[in-house]
Amino acid sequence: MVWPEVSILCVGSVALDSVETPFGNAERVLGGSAVFFTAAASLLHPVQVVGVVGDDYPLRDLAFLAARGADLSGIEQREGESFFWAGRYHFDLNTRDTLETRLGVFADFQPKIPEAFRDARYVFLGNIDPVLQLDVLDQVESPDVVACDTMNYWISGHREALLELLPRVRILMVNEEEVRQLAGEPNLLKAARWVQERGPEMVVVKKGEHGAILFADHWLFFVPGFPLEEVFDPTGAGDAFAGGFVGYLARAGSLTPQDLRRAMVYGSVMGSYVVEEFSVNRLIDLPLSDIERRVVEFREITAFETQVPVEEHV
Amino acid sequence: MVWPEVSILCVGSVALDSVETPFGNAERVLGGSAVFFTAAASLLHPVQVVGVVGDDYPLRDLAFLAARGADLSGIEQREGESFFWAGRYHFDLNTRDTLETRLGVFADFQPKIPEAFRDARYVFLGNIDPVLQLDVLDQVESPDVVACDTMNYWISGHREALLELLPRVRILMVNEEEVRQLAGEPNLLKAARWVQERGPEMVVVKKGEHGAILFADHWLFFVPGFPLEEVFDPTGAGDAFAGGFVGYLARAGSLTPQDLRRAMVYGSVMGSYVVEEFSVNRLIDLPLSDIERRVVEFREITAFETQVPVEEHV
Repeated sequence: MVWPEVSILCVGSVALDSVETPFGNAERVLGGSAVFFTAAASLLHPVQVVGVVGDDYPLRDLAFLAARGADLSGIEQREGESFFWAGRYHFDLNTRDTLETRLGVFADFQPKIPEAFRDARYVFLGNIDPVLQLDVLDQVESPDVVACDTMNYWISGHREALLELLPRVRILMVNEEEVRQLAGEPNLLKAARWVQERGPEMVVVKKGEHGAILFADHWLFFVPGFPLEEVFDPTGAGDAFAGGFVGYLARAGSLTPQDLRRAMVYGSVMGSYVVEEFSVNRLIDLPLSDIERRVVEFREITAFETQVPVEEHV
Repeated sequence: MVWPEVSILCVGSVALDSVETPFGNAERVLGGSAVFFTAAASLLHPVQVVGVVGDDYPLRDLAFLAARGADLSGIEQREGESFFWAGRYHFDLNTRDTLETRLGVFADFQPKIPEAFRDARYVFLGNIDPVLQLDVLDQVESPDVVACDTMNYWISGHREALLELLPRVRILMVNEEEVRQLAGEPNLLKAARWVQERGPEMVVVKKGEHGAILFADHWLFFVPGFPLEEVFDPTGAGDAFAGGFVGYLARAGSLTPQDLRRAMVYGSVMGSYVVEEFSVNRLIDLPLSDIERRVVEFREITAFETQVPVEEHV
């Protein structure tokens, strides 16, 4: 196996999640934006991970990532507790209650990008303080693609840092509520344009089970959520989507409109797989053939021919 | 102009709506399921309409439908008030409050299908009492395609009649909440299958701005909502969708999977146009070329090639 030199740098949370769904419970399983992103992206392309964990973290459980070429040497282990999140999903899985959040060592996270990671061509900034996201970008040389997530907490609380960050982001990846909140505009098209006027060339708006939209310069692309009979645990779907998206772009090595469209589909494929089991479990032994089969299924559920087969009778 | 012999029969409400949106108000404008359906379907194929109005109804405002070949002779005018609905949309247009509903002459609606309409090959049963929908089917000879809408009120209140109706319906067209309520099942795939096991060969689930899904025998098709910069008034989008869907099927004259896929797109096109103005205004002078241009735009925002352009490196 020869890995390409070009790598994806991912900076985000490496956490433990306790999740209750209508179908069962999982206690202190792998979670966090960097873990979900990497579990998906590393199926397509090598990833270098930067994060922090406490001395309670089961690092051995990340071995499957290292085995497929992810470089975990940027995960710092410190004395104390790992970032912990506990949540409970409602019956329809569309809403959840946070039962507990303990930041632990993540509260003082100061990302240090290892020397060997600084020439990354692709950078994914998981949902952390935009001040830290800016700090990460100061440490990398000249990435081609910076993709970035954020959340309501930073949009309202660290708005200034976020606006300072936007010109250095090529692709902002947020959900519907976040882009509306950021732009102060309920219409998605206008909200996306508001963001694009502040730096990012592209905006990916994630809509959960309803799919995702890519807003590019003068075009857009829509991918549905894959219709699943069993959604087991929605945690991490957005980060797995980002992993499939950035992972595919790095794999393709270019950003043509066709690459970007396919990247959206790979994102949705990863999002659709990760929710089939707790944590990242579904992505651990997922063969590329299964990923590509679902890409084809996405085409089957969306493709149509425009030709009108009957003559106009008016 | 020579109209094909095969027509679409539409039975539903012919109403007056007063609508408040964040962008303005409209007072006593054309509304009702049969009006929205026919305004869309008649752009593609002739429609025969059955409904009831009071003596306050501005029948002259329906002249544009007759001018394009809709047969309105099944609209009975009776002494009394027309069905009236008043509603107010919230800022994000996704939720609305009903301010007033007065059934008027619609309360005693007993659809009488004119002799000349009884050989209809395509029947659309708008959202009325399933007892009346059954009665309509007793009056038509042997339609090829019966498409049917319903709502929460009938699902809970007239469930038995609705279940009796289902085996006589080929395509059930409902929204997400309705199919979930009908099947008592939050998962859309399972809810659609529940319906299919009770008669309808196909289920179309309308998801508003998030698009629509067609569940056929062993396949499904997804069409997004068209991303619009200005959604002016969402009233009637579901019925206009049904009009585009059934209108296209009648126009095509067959129900191949490609026809059905395109019908979904024509449905979404009509739904996307009708919300651009109050009432059916946007559909009055809509040229076929605009419809077909938006069909092409739908293809542009959903099409991708599955071919993976780089060699596997694993």
